[in-house]
Amino acid sequence: MKCPDSDGSRGDARASARKSVSVEIVSTGTELMQGLYSDTNAQYLSQVMEGLGFEVRYHTAVGDDAETLEEALRIARGRVEIVVITGGLGPTADDVTRDVVARVWGKELREDTEALRLIEERFAARDLKMPASNRAQALVPEGAVALHNPVGTATGFISQGEEAVAVVLPGPKREFVPMLEKHVIPFLTETYGVQQLRRTRTIRTFGVPESYLNEQLRDLFSQSGKPGLAFLAKPGKVDIRLNVRGEGEPEVGRCIAEMERKILRRIGEEHVYGYDEEEIEQSVGKLLRERRLRIAVAESCTGGEVTMRLTEVSGSSNYISECYVTYSNEAKVKLVGVKRETLETCGAVSRETAAEMAVGVRERAGVDIGLGITGIAGPTGGTAEKPVGLVYLGLADARGVMTFRRQFTGNRSENRLWATETALDLLRRLILGKLAAEK
Amino acid sequence: MKCPDSDGSRGDARASARKSVSVEIVSTGTELMQGLYSDTNAQYLSQVMEGLGFEVRYHTAVGDDAETLEEALRIARGRVEIVVITGGLGPTADDVTRDVVARVWGKELREDTEALRLIEERFAARDLKMPASNRAQALVPEGAVALHNPVGTATGFISQGEEAVAVVLPGPKREFVPMLEKHVIPFLTETYGVQQLRRTRTIRTFGVPESYLNEQLRDLFSQSGKPGLAFLAKPGKVDIRLNVRGEGEPEVGRCIAEMERKILRRIGEEHVYGYDEEEIEQSVGKLLRERRLRIAVAESCTGGEVTMRLTEVSGSSNYISECYVTYSNEAKVKLVGVKRETLETCGAVSRETAAEMAVGVRERAGVDIGLGITGIAGPTGGTAEKPVGLVYLGLADARGVMTFRRQFTGNRSENRLWATETALDLLRRLILGKLAAEK
Repeated sequence: MKCPDSDGSRGDARASARKSVSVEIVSTGTELMQGLYSDTNAQYLSQVMEGLGFEVRYHTAVGDDAETLEEALRIARGRVEIVVITGGLGPTADDVTRDVVARVWGKELREDTEALRLIEERFAARDLKMPASNRAQALVPEGAVALHNPVGTATGFISQGEEAVAVVLPGPKREFVPMLEKHVIPFLTETYGVQQLRRTRTIRTFGVPESYLNEQLRDLFSQSGKPGLAFLAKPGKVDIRLNVRGEGEPEVGRCIAEMERKILRRIGEEHVYGYDEEEIEQSVGKLLRERRLRIAVAESCTGGEVTMRLTEVSGSSNYISECYVTYSNEAKVKLVGVKRETLETCGAVSRETAAEMAVGVRERAGVDIGLGITGIAGPTGGTAEKPVGLVYLGLADARGVMTFRRQFTGNRSENRLWATETALDLLRRLILGKLAAEK
Repeated sequence: MKCPDSDGSRGDARASARKSVSVEIVSTGTELMQGLYSDTNAQYLSQVMEGLGFEVRYHTAVGDDAETLEEALRIARGRVEIVVITGGLGPTADDVTRDVVARVWGKELREDTEALRLIEERFAARDLKMPASNRAQALVPEGAVALHNPVGTATGFISQGEEAVAVVLPGPKREFVPMLEKHVIPFLTETYGVQQLRRTRTIRTFGVPESYLNEQLRDLFSQSGKPGLAFLAKPGKVDIRLNVRGEGEPEVGRCIAEMERKILRRIGEEHVYGYDEEEIEQSVGKLLRERRLRIAVAESCTGGEVTMRLTEVSGSSNYISECYVTYSNEAKVKLVGVKRETLETCGAVSRETAAEMAVGVRERAGVDIGLGITGIAGPTGGTAEKPVGLVYLGLADARGVMTFRRQFTGNRSENRLWATETALDLLRRLILGKLAAEK
């Protein structure tokens, strides 16, 4: 196999990094310093910049303080070629980014006529007069390219200097993403030319332990000249991340495809629920549509989470018409025909109840597949025999009903989430014809 | 009113910051630079350090590259008093933190006998011989305090130098948290003495524009000697964050209580759905239990999200027994008795349908309150008259039914989320007797 240089082993990555355009992501916000939230802007922007073939070398975050920001930007400007800054473009005195960037890049602030017009228009559209303080949001350093904001009043900009380019964006993602896509990415691609092509591919698996994957794929990992592989494990799920860098297509694409085939063959295709950003419910939705199957769900411990996930997919009305949350025993009897006797003899959390829920909801809704879930999400309600985290799942189709028992060990919302994802994955395997009954 | 010094207004914060011990959090990991995940270590450590009364001034993140890390640590060491570093303490060549910290702090690495014993013990407990590479994990700079790891093989350490203290911890939270609690926090408290007491209180509002809150509370913001106030706005919701620092109790507690009363009086108590980490569904749950009311929901566009949120609260079986996702017209008729005529004349997304869903689900479930939601989540299904994001909500109780119209402007999952939170907040106001019909 001939594959381009790897990214997974550090040695190779560094060798090729020397050629890359370097980037620093700077985030501002006192709340970041207080730990009120994590810096997801830096994460998002890193993905974008790495995707363009640039090399992100530093993340820096500081509070809304002009002096500290200025110091951070002077350092950034001296050590990378592109500085991407988010936050601090609001209308108040706390919003210091405009001033500080202008100072560090040695420019005066000027009012951008078009930006001002757009801000005034936003207020006018809501029958409001623009407050004087918002006028500051139309200021950009002289010579900078103003980035107009389609969903807010903060104007971003790109300021070029001798040392580094400053890309300045508002803090909220929903504001900066459109600006990034419309202006920043085209600007960077044009200015720096096409970088080394870098592509990642994520193969998403469910229900296979990381240690098993590691065993199966170990030899593909760290040898030079092989594409980089990494695992990202979440409860129940493991993402296999393939990272390939090369001079261009078709080399990179061919290598990804080749590796993918090899991985699938080794680990078993049925464990893969999707690729890249795909979620299990999308994969389930695709299968249901392809095979013209309809589904209904009766949920107890998950309280609607499975239905919510299934209907998160646009077009899900093609395969879902009605679902039930049967939280009480009474509701299980009344809505999906669970037998009182079953509830009394086996209990609401039992294989038998899950089976009757699945069969019942399939009948009541008149669909091809019925799914029933009953369990103890916690923190209360557990016993020695039926502890918190115990969940039974039932799946009914024309051939009959299968049930599955799972014991989760998380808190309430984790147990609900894991039960939901387990249900979705069982569903996926059922439709694929790859589901065997639990003995 | 006598209140301790503020933290919220930048001027004051800096004034008091000058007295505080300054901190920089440094995270290492090539995956951070690739945007594979966000830096939650920095968030967690900021909370801890701010809670101890220290002032976090910078977050820095770099890849697993010795040269870049060394440069970042030289800068950190020169500008703050405490540098907290996580990651890069593994056994492989990629794990450069130990070496780099020793070099920057000007110390030789020495083997810590106790650390080595513990690492060997961990392997022995699993009947394994320690691989030679793990021996490096027992190295700490000379004169440093070794931080033994109860759940892994990476040894942390605290290294004191003339300029700054380095606190070095392994990357995984489950490893560093015990070390932090057992060793680092006691060390810092002892070394720096008890810092100023700092407390925050978050007042969570729904349905009030940030600009209105700003107007009502502006004068509480930036004067010296007043507690710090900040807003954190998310669609529909604004958190008012109160930040008080003082010499101790009862001063700080009294000040928080006093400010809280003042804020509630000004903005109107009914807009506040919770405090600190509380979510709307918890507030709704508390109200339903207190007043012994039961609820049922019929959801269309939200696809189960409202029911899921309501049942996320432990003990929700006290007030929820059954709920319906009526995704199709057929299901609306069959399950909650919406009239075919209404669907034909007014459409599935209409005030009339929402009202009938609310009344119908209340009757079918035999509960006190019925909630119906119908709308167009998108991205398809919108028309000029009924665009994507249009949602009607119906609330029925013994007195009758009220309906509400909302036009959201997000993507599919945003529209669903905002509709869900609007529904929960309307429910809260209904139970409080503070809900007026829309004209």
